[in-house]
Amino acid sequence: MTDTFEPKFDAGGLLTAVVVDARDNAVRMVGHMDREALDRTRETGLAHFHSRSRGKLWLKGETSGNMLDVVEILVDCDQDALVLRCIPRGPTCHTGADSCFFRRLEDDALVALED
Amino acid sequence: MTDTFEPKFDAGGLLTAVVVDARDNAVRMVGHMDREALDRTRETGLAHFHSRSRGKLWLKGETSGNMLDVVEILVDCDQDALVLRCIPRGPTCHTGADSCFFRRLEDDALVALED
Repeated sequence: MTDTFEPKFDAGGLLTAVVVDARDNAVRMVGHMDREALDRTRETGLAHFHSRSRGKLWLKGETSGNMLDVVEILVDCDQDALVLRCIPRGPTCHTGADSCFFRRLEDDALVALED
Repeated sequence: MTDTFEPKFDAGGLLTAVVVDARDNAVRMVGHMDREALDRTRETGLAHFHSRSRGKLWLKGETSGNMLDVVEILVDCDQDALVLRCIPRGPTCHTGADSCFFRRLEDDALVALED
């Protein structure tokens, strides 16, 4: 079955985008995309987001060089969330960790994951 | 380094929660959690969300029985997104697919993934 891509942006004009490392499926980050970020991502093959804090288009890795090359985009059943399967050029988190999800919850503490 | 868990709910009072299958790391669904859904998830070990369409607490699998047993919760750098590592009791998508992300984007078409 083939359906047409008709992304359902939320009231703020955004989709949720989950970045996973195409090599091991690990979740690297969660971002948000407006139409512009989605279009730029598809045109360039590099993951772009809409920065909610800065209110503008954001090429991930523009400053650090740690861009995300998009291999494949998966779309969920109701078309309001995407999974971007990417090959990361370096660490994804601004802390220098490979993934923004580098801690697990234990009671009310955040404990660093062991590699 | 240990930090304190201080979830940063957005303007709508929500966190983004990415459900991954703890067995193979596959992303199963993306949901949203308010404080109530987060607390209930942690109390019960079963993934709960806040349904944006129905505006209320939602125990995933309440109707279908396909609940998600939460093995571990990962927290991102800025504490506004979670990864729930789960053992699913059955398919996660309401369509009957294991994952809500059962299609990939190809030009402007959605093409079913091959298993």
